[in-house]
Amino acid sequence: MSEATKPILEVLSGNRQKVPPVWFMRQAGRYLPEYRAVRERAGSFLKLCFTPDLAAEITLQPIRRFGFDAAILFSDILVVPHALGRRVSFETGEGPRLEPLDISDIGALPTEADAAILVPVYEAVRLVKRKLPPRVALLGFCGAPWTVATYMIAGRGTPDQAPARTFAYREPEAFARLIEILIGVSSHYLVEQIRAGAEAVQIFDTWAGVLPPREFERWCVAPVRKMAVNVRREIPDAKIIGFPRGCGASLATYLDQVPVNAVGLDWAADPAFVHEHVRGRAAVQGNLDPLVLLAGGEALDRAIDDVLANYAEGPFIFNLGHGILPETPVMHVEQTLQRIRLS
Amino acid sequence: MSEATKPILEVLSGNRQKVPPVWFMRQAGRYLPEYRAVRERAGSFLKLCFTPDLAAEITLQPIRRFGFDAAILFSDILVVPHALGRRVSFETGEGPRLEPLDISDIGALPTEADAAILVPVYEAVRLVKRKLPPRVALLGFCGAPWTVATYMIAGRGTPDQAPARTFAYREPEAFARLIEILIGVSSHYLVEQIRAGAEAVQIFDTWAGVLPPREFERWCVAPVRKMAVNVRREIPDAKIIGFPRGCGASLATYLDQVPVNAVGLDWAADPAFVHEHVRGRAAVQGNLDPLVLLAGGEALDRAIDDVLANYAEGPFIFNLGHGILPETPVMHVEQTLQRIRLS
Repeated sequence: MSEATKPILEVLSGNRQKVPPVWFMRQAGRYLPEYRAVRERAGSFLKLCFTPDLAAEITLQPIRRFGFDAAILFSDILVVPHALGRRVSFETGEGPRLEPLDISDIGALPTEADAAILVPVYEAVRLVKRKLPPRVALLGFCGAPWTVATYMIAGRGTPDQAPARTFAYREPEAFARLIEILIGVSSHYLVEQIRAGAEAVQIFDTWAGVLPPREFERWCVAPVRKMAVNVRREIPDAKIIGFPRGCGASLATYLDQVPVNAVGLDWAADPAFVHEHVRGRAAVQGNLDPLVLLAGGEALDRAIDDVLANYAEGPFIFNLGHGILPETPVMHVEQTLQRIRLS
Repeated sequence: MSEATKPILEVLSGNRQKVPPVWFMRQAGRYLPEYRAVRERAGSFLKLCFTPDLAAEITLQPIRRFGFDAAILFSDILVVPHALGRRVSFETGEGPRLEPLDISDIGALPTEADAAILVPVYEAVRLVKRKLPPRVALLGFCGAPWTVATYMIAGRGTPDQAPARTFAYREPEAFARLIEILIGVSSHYLVEQIRAGAEAVQIFDTWAGVLPPREFERWCVAPVRKMAVNVRREIPDAKIIGFPRGCGASLATYLDQVPVNAVGLDWAADPAFVHEHVRGRAAVQGNLDPLVLLAGGEALDRAIDDVLANYAEGPFIFNLGHGILPETPVMHVEQTLQRIRLS
């Protein structure tokens, strides 16, 4: 491997690395004291996202502290609805809040994002890119249309996103319009992140697991496929990581249709299924339970070993099965990186 | 089929029925005006569970109104912790509340349920059995040890039962003791329900989907396997339906180890996976999205047809993918039964 090669990009090209590269979803965030300090000074979460210096600084914090193999841009999937004119807010400990969307709001939605709102995001990407160590890859991201739509409809997260599911059953045409808008805006958003310097992008479909097969194909699979096609039309070798969280055995359908370089697994994924249906088609990324990272101790060591035993024999990126929890002790992250790198 | 044969029991013996038999999880419940009337008079939910006349009456209500093919005893999975001396309460619209369990409480738990508390449940089974139409089967049930334990630890339902998962990581020995107690008590509870007249029993593992593979095998699969073995030791031909909700592709592991007659599917199950891993090993039960039953209209018709197309070619019991929602219009239940029976 030449000095300039980045392990995560190698894995995304299908080349297994002897020591699996590592990054963690939400690695730039509340579990870090240096993040909390910046957030306290800045005030609002959205101000962090839209101030390039601050977003870049926060993005780099976990790289400095832990030496992760990728930096993921500090931002949020809800900047897209924000750029579509929806009011979004983040209260600490409360999760995001949006003004809920009804059928007439969908009719009135613009089909393009307010470009001025997203410019600071691309600027943050440029700033981070300049400061990254040479082996560290820069990841951009966005939410998948279904997941972003669930928050836009409900105005918040719910245990199984029932409001959006009900809306989609009752008003499929309006819902389809919302999804089409999100496909267009999100595709463009990823393209611009890549043009600004992101070396791969992850599409987060946090709520992929709550739909029956027909709706999963219509609202999750087809839209993310269209996004991948849109992005590759502009950037033919774009590297894309799909993360259809919680979709169980429907992951096979997802991979049949969505051309991703890697697939993110949640912590409940079944290793035998992944061997049969993912290996040879995409790299694997995942899938330590964020709660065992929080719990620490012997359980953590055993869980790390399980993830490595289950997946590290092929092209593999070590990650969590979902975002790192705010209460996670920093020492447990160190313990995890050490164990992976000594493995 | 002789007059005395019950379609659901036929399916549980592996014999496909031309018109699939139907019942719905929580079919005796709040969406029915006649249930709400009884509940208002009685006051507390637990009083309904422990007063045989009332429990029997409520169990029979949906049979009279809709002609379901099975009656499921009106009760709750939390009567088991109640019979272990834990305080349980149900506030309308709030979900269940228990006093949360800590490590010292587990040390102090009895290893057998207070028999006097559960006697009215068996009496309710006897009352229902006497009044059921001849083609209607009577189902008993209990919660799986893991699911019951998650409520006992947290004192309530949470989006992914993090308190119990954390507890199990940090205190595996104490947690194992809790699970062992629940295996013993729940096995006995099912045996007594069958002796009182239940013709099949369902083991609800509502939270099977939140665990990594190692923990899924230890806390879900092995305990339910032990329960099935315990029940069959007393009643060799006991018919058992397993419902490991949300376990995705790990359903294969479950079926490898747990000897069930049928497996309940949640609404997000993948039909191709089920064909490959369930067919020929167990009957299938499921899996209409309770939200599409609530939504109604064309979406409901299409969803019913999808479920039938996906699963009715083998031994199959039509059901929901989870409990019926309190806001469900009674007319939508009628629409569903008609469509299944005309199919």
